[in-house]
Amino acid sequence: MKIAIVGATGEVGKMMISCLNDYSIDYEKLTLFASQKSAGQQIKFRKKTYTVQLLTDKSLQEKYDYILFSAGSSVSKQYAQDAVNAGSIVIDNSSAFRRIDTIPLIVPEINGTLLKDYQGIIANPNCSTIQMVLLLNIINKLYTIEKVVITTFQSVSGSGYTGISTLLNQRNGDKNIGKYPRIIDLNVIPQIGDFDDFGYCEEEVKMTNESRKILNIYDLDLTATTVRVPVLYCHSESIYIKLKKDVIINQIIDHFNQTDYIKYNPIYDCPIDVQDSNLSHVSRIRYAGSKNSITLWNVSNNVRLGAAANAVKILKMHYQINKS
Amino acid sequence: MKIAIVGATGEVGKMMISCLNDYSIDYEKLTLFASQKSAGQQIKFRKKTYTVQLLTDKSLQEKYDYILFSAGSSVSKQYAQDAVNAGSIVIDNSSAFRRIDTIPLIVPEINGTLLKDYQGIIANPNCSTIQMVLLLNIINKLYTIEKVVITTFQSVSGSGYTGISTLLNQRNGDKNIGKYPRIIDLNVIPQIGDFDDFGYCEEEVKMTNESRKILNIYDLDLTATTVRVPVLYCHSESIYIKLKKDVIINQIIDHFNQTDYIKYNPIYDCPIDVQDSNLSHVSRIRYAGSKNSITLWNVSNNVRLGAAANAVKILKMHYQINKS
Repeated sequence: MKIAIVGATGEVGKMMISCLNDYSIDYEKLTLFASQKSAGQQIKFRKKTYTVQLLTDKSLQEKYDYILFSAGSSVSKQYAQDAVNAGSIVIDNSSAFRRIDTIPLIVPEINGTLLKDYQGIIANPNCSTIQMVLLLNIINKLYTIEKVVITTFQSVSGSGYTGISTLLNQRNGDKNIGKYPRIIDLNVIPQIGDFDDFGYCEEEVKMTNESRKILNIYDLDLTATTVRVPVLYCHSESIYIKLKKDVIINQIIDHFNQTDYIKYNPIYDCPIDVQDSNLSHVSRIRYAGSKNSITLWNVSNNVRLGAAANAVKILKMHYQINKS
Repeated sequence: MKIAIVGATGEVGKMMISCLNDYSIDYEKLTLFASQKSAGQQIKFRKKTYTVQLLTDKSLQEKYDYILFSAGSSVSKQYAQDAVNAGSIVIDNSSAFRRIDTIPLIVPEINGTLLKDYQGIIANPNCSTIQMVLLLNIINKLYTIEKVVITTFQSVSGSGYTGISTLLNQRNGDKNIGKYPRIIDLNVIPQIGDFDDFGYCEEEVKMTNESRKILNIYDLDLTATTVRVPVLYCHSESIYIKLKKDVIINQIIDHFNQTDYIKYNPIYDCPIDVQDSNLSHVSRIRYAGSKNSITLWNVSNNVRLGAAANAVKILKMHYQINKS
């Protein structure tokens, strides 16, 4: 198997390399690409040293079995289709293609069967969406969701390295707002991305639209408030769910425990507790005023499960489902 | 007017003194009390220097017109009734008496008329409740509330000075958890107070019970998730409200703008933006999937409006409503 990673020196790109180990992906050849700024860097992995290549128009004319993109929407828009034309399968972590009907938006545990016989661009969902839909999918199958209200606590690594450096610099006295609309140190900011005409910011719109597409429930009633918090890694989400049937909480917990991608904690997890995990961590599941509504607390590493791990799981599932 | 403040050297106590200016409270005599640890401190206010007195069993045998308590539940339980027996009116910031039926729990703009002819202990509500019920009261009168779902982002000053010092020490490398169940620096913690048998922590239970009592809606369906965040001052709240009638958002904004205690921002406020304000700041009011539901963002200084300012407003209203 020949694999390439575009954006290999970013927060997600580095984690994609690491996740090749986490999910036991064997390859014959691994090629790492980045922009001018990072090309030439050397990265050690599996006892080999890789020199990061400059991404040019010619780079992806060569066919790879899988190319993982994590270099932002503009790079994906510029290079992904050419890569597909050369016969490669692209797994794209940007938002460039997620809303295109003909492009599958995949969380393998939910809709991975869409990968069967599929060639082309595969979209990796937004970080805050992935950890949540893994839970919603199970709950919906049990009780049918009527309404979801989410409030997020999103870490600065969701903005990549510049998010992290903005917070760390401000902790050291830097008074510049850096990556965000306000100082993020000792503050919380209820805006992630630009606002639309209805008062929702981009991250909130993504959570609604992507959840609908992944869960294949196009009238899903889901309202999000997305908030940046001064945390380095892991997004937390407070999720209220109204169901069409009465709920037995222990039944939900049993179903979560039967998966290998959700970890239930009878107390709770905080961001700093689950930084090294690829799982979606859930706790504080309780009735919310009636037997047909619950609220819960969900934490997951946005760079791992929310980006790199899901992309590598897509690669693995596509390979397994189509080999023969 | 003779006024005493018990717990005068704490975060809220100091702000109570300051709020005597904000609300133009004239007095003949001001006496400041604290525990052994802080007695003897000197506090300058209105060109006078006050020496903080040690609170003893005899301190409150003298009658004051108003005694503001902010020294925790145990101090209130020990001293408040004796003070009332001596003829003083007690305004208590602790949770000691809030749930007692015969004791009024007051937000002056909502249920201040209960102060007419009342003598005895008056309870000041929980910080995260006050800023929210001011909004809910107006919205409920317009459209009748069916369901409220809140997620809070609560600053460390909500735990008093030890909360602040815990965060500041951890920023300087201290690895002790200090005041909280986990490290709060670069983290968020979905627990404020102990858990009950239904999975709710104390702060969440307070928000439900106190809102019901203040709004005089004893079946109010209100679900809270209360989260500590690494912010020094101001609590933020993401509030979803389902109404019994369709909503016109501009009508809500108009009603907010007609008050002198709610400030609407067409963009939004963050904690660091409203630290010097005694108001409840609201923004991001938008429909939440249907015309009869909205979600909004609410920020307020928990030490000011959430504690000291509301207590001093109670004092002022009680005085004005009962003088003759």
